[in-house]
Amino acid sequence: MDARRKVELFLERPLRPGRTGGAHKGTLIIIGGHEDRTGEKKILRAVAERLGDDGKIVVCTVASSEPESLWEEYESAFRALGVPHVFRLDVESRVEASSPRAMRILEGATGVFFTGGDQLKITSQIGDTPMYSRLQEIFESGGVIAGTSAGASAMSETMLVANHGEASYRIKSSLLMAPGLALAQDMLIDQHFAERGRMARLIGAVTQNPRVLGVGIDEDTAIILERQRVFRVLGAGAVYVVDGSTTTYSNLGEEDSDRTLSSFGITVHMLSQGDRFDLSTRVPHAYPADSMDDEEEDRGTGTE
Amino acid sequence: MDARRKVELFLERPLRPGRTGGAHKGTLIIIGGHEDRTGEKKILRAVAERLGDDGKIVVCTVASSEPESLWEEYESAFRALGVPHVFRLDVESRVEASSPRAMRILEGATGVFFTGGDQLKITSQIGDTPMYSRLQEIFESGGVIAGTSAGASAMSETMLVANHGEASYRIKSSLLMAPGLALAQDMLIDQHFAERGRMARLIGAVTQNPRVLGVGIDEDTAIILERQRVFRVLGAGAVYVVDGSTTTYSNLGEEDSDRTLSSFGITVHMLSQGDRFDLSTRVPHAYPADSMDDEEEDRGTGTE
Repeated sequence: MDARRKVELFLERPLRPGRTGGAHKGTLIIIGGHEDRTGEKKILRAVAERLGDDGKIVVCTVASSEPESLWEEYESAFRALGVPHVFRLDVESRVEASSPRAMRILEGATGVFFTGGDQLKITSQIGDTPMYSRLQEIFESGGVIAGTSAGASAMSETMLVANHGEASYRIKSSLLMAPGLALAQDMLIDQHFAERGRMARLIGAVTQNPRVLGVGIDEDTAIILERQRVFRVLGAGAVYVVDGSTTTYSNLGEEDSDRTLSSFGITVHMLSQGDRFDLSTRVPHAYPADSMDDEEEDRGTGTE
Repeated sequence: MDARRKVELFLERPLRPGRTGGAHKGTLIIIGGHEDRTGEKKILRAVAERLGDDGKIVVCTVASSEPESLWEEYESAFRALGVPHVFRLDVESRVEASSPRAMRILEGATGVFFTGGDQLKITSQIGDTPMYSRLQEIFESGGVIAGTSAGASAMSETMLVANHGEASYRIKSSLLMAPGLALAQDMLIDQHFAERGRMARLIGAVTQNPRVLGVGIDEDTAIILERQRVFRVLGAGAVYVVDGSTTTYSNLGEEDSDRTLSSFGITVHMLSQGDRFDLSTRVPHAYPADSMDDEEEDRGTGTE
């Protein structure tokens, strides 16, 4: 389809997540930031190996204030991993995210990778534009959508917004949220998790509505979500699942917003490589870390 | 009793925690570090108000590498709070901790306050010395033992030892522990909790043996443990109780020590000022933050 026609079509009928009820064939790879880009590249390799034999990845640097250097790093990494087609898409405005140029770059893409930076730049620039509809289309047709750091947070339905300064345990602190891209449904992602000590804010976020599951991802660590309801852990760090459904009490509605949060009876699962988590039942399943390496290796061999 | 005789007595029959089965009348005030020392001094006030009308507090700077300046800060604070007798005890060796001089300084003390620094300096210098026996004696006879930062960690049965560098989610990282003063039984205390992002290491510690309850205390926040089995929260931050008794699985015994920890089904309670926690039943109870201010204020008025 002509790129200009595609823009018109998406402007007429935007693809929003709610309309499919989450029945996608796509794969989400959500990374806690600082993934290895020059050595073994375990996580980027997992992205590359899911792009298909004639794979095309589009690196979207919209979140970053240093898009050039980031693009160079990812271009080298994905080329080194043997991805046949590596493209870059930087958008600096909603006009660009609604342009035929963006459609042309995304034409035939089997994967899109969102870099780190500021998650609000991602959502404010591309939210509900034709580029976002195209992203949904790629995802629904079985493509890979990956994001690291801010790109990871943006995958959430409701996303945490950067909050510099204090240890963020105040009731009001946990209110710094915004609507995300909603590719990861019923989840709220946090990144650089152990490194930046973010348990307090994730507990705060989940306490506000235990319908969403809190998922905190350490650096150089990722969750791979295939077939929508089970994710697996890959990488060096841990993934913390914060399940608020067992919460027995919180003071959210009772105390002033500058008071400190109380929240009792939260369930926390700490997962490491190989472990799986069933999002339907909210139950973790243990697998040896090696099993994941073996599986990824087999996948690599299979596509060569 | 003569100080020299006291030393001999304690050398002959050291007071160790196990012998009483934890039946103490004393009060423990365990502080997450950086408590306010110049303004409202909410937490130090709570210490001061529990010392009695003719109270004597001994500030023990053994943990610190800057004992002079710390002593000056605490001396000013406790004098400003109207404590009649404020003394300092610095010990630089086990010989000093076993000296008649130490006994004389602790004579008649109704409270002992341990400053921050290095918790291993506290335990290695005073563990099982006559000074430690005297500390037990003060505690058992209804005195106040308080500690902040390293002084807080040292209260634990088994204590976490400082671990600089990585985000500490490795199986081996969580092994950095040592025997503590054991005044807080069945508990493992961590401090500067949200500020230094220590949830991973506390989960690691509790996973090793869910018999002990993990208690992570934020800065300018304290737990007050009276009558041994219930603590209350006072101060600006939060207290995180990590209960491993619900843990369903961990990979501690299965994976190599440089692997990342998995631990499923941990229960976490986030408490703020006013909230209470019953150590026997491991159940939190919610109280408004104001109720604690009122109670502390009444106590202050009562002793004036």
